[in-house]
Amino acid sequence: MSSHHIVKEKQEPALIIANGEACSEELLGQLLEWSPYIVVLDHAIYRVLELGIKIDAWLGDFDQQHDFEAIRDRQHPLEIVNTPDQEKTDLEKGIDFLIEKGFPAANIVWATGRRQDHAITNVTNLVRYKDQIKLVMFDDYSKIFPLAGTFEKWYVAGTPISLIPVGVVEGIETSGLKYNLNDEILTMGHRTGNSNEAEKDGIVRISAKKGDMLIMECWDL
Amino acid sequence: MSSHHIVKEKQEPALIIANGEACSEELLGQLLEWSPYIVVLDHAIYRVLELGIKIDAWLGDFDQQHDFEAIRDRQHPLEIVNTPDQEKTDLEKGIDFLIEKGFPAANIVWATGRRQDHAITNVTNLVRYKDQIKLVMFDDYSKIFPLAGTFEKWYVAGTPISLIPVGVVEGIETSGLKYNLNDEILTMGHRTGNSNEAEKDGIVRISAKKGDMLIMECWDL
Repeated sequence: MSSHHIVKEKQEPALIIANGEACSEELLGQLLEWSPYIVVLDHAIYRVLELGIKIDAWLGDFDQQHDFEAIRDRQHPLEIVNTPDQEKTDLEKGIDFLIEKGFPAANIVWATGRRQDHAITNVTNLVRYKDQIKLVMFDDYSKIFPLAGTFEKWYVAGTPISLIPVGVVEGIETSGLKYNLNDEILTMGHRTGNSNEAEKDGIVRISAKKGDMLIMECWDL
Repeated sequence: MSSHHIVKEKQEPALIIANGEACSEELLGQLLEWSPYIVVLDHAIYRVLELGIKIDAWLGDFDQQHDFEAIRDRQHPLEIVNTPDQEKTDLEKGIDFLIEKGFPAANIVWATGRRQDHAITNVTNLVRYKDQIKLVMFDDYSKIFPLAGTFEKWYVAGTPISLIPVGVVEGIETSGLKYNLNDEILTMGHRTGNSNEAEKDGIVRISAKKGDMLIMECWDL
């Protein structure tokens, strides 16, 4: 793939398709709408091939047998990257790959559901990249992203917004929420900001002095 | 319900059916096998009624309309408990209810999947009860429980075992795992013990000096 091709596509967030539970075709279709640069992780390749999606890169440790030629035939050009590092999860490898390529932002799907060890690790690991790349994880019920600096966004009244501390988060300040926090501490497993919401149509502001926090917009179907 | 009836059933763990994604009927059938004391949370009541399961208690904040008489007619005797506390999740209310009733142990299903804010809160909150009641959460891919004291169990070689720190966990010692830890630190979002496994047929031991940790046995289907 030529470098100017990549530069063109960096206008939009890249998309990582991980190997958890598939999302609805509607959500996937929305994320694919601007034909972003698409990275598929490991065994998800077969489910993605079935959907007839054109992808750009396939990452995996390839510890099981694959028919690489058959896959290349169906996806051309396709960058196949062997990532044998046992210290990192597949999703971390995918994010690192995009950071190396210079992408400023990426959306992530199929990273939740199924095995809880993988799901909780995928979700909470988002925080470690907050200063390197803008990440947003989606599934059919959730939009998840790490707090980086001060968060500000306009919401419709009643929009569910959960503050999920990854560990201990100190000095949390919010405005525009139904239950605002004023220099407070949240601790995962003990006190979280689950099921808060926008108080009225307007700006919600969230900041914290210390620690890693996820912001989740979730909904029931 | 007479008190001696409860005492009889406390021989087995109680079962909490939460309001997340339903598990397979096979898993639910296994957990129901000894007719445990069953608590259903909030809106899950309708899905449980459809399955024709006899339950003992129904907890919720009942902020929406329910036909209590119709539900009582189908479930008799049924203890209906109004739990309006906005500071606690439905699952916390269910666990507190069982602790008050004196149950030493409970299994939990339907607590994962769907909204990630609810799922991650349900999973990580298990640690806060580790000294009060023995909790095990199940879904179709996962068995999850908090580390309390020193954990020891016999496993078949290759069984996946993940150590998921809820925050920072210090002084972790393990034996019997493929990647053992020796007085090490795990930090959620930064360094976790995801995707470890039993090295051989035999005892796995896990302990930690400080912090809250979840142990997860997970599998692919």
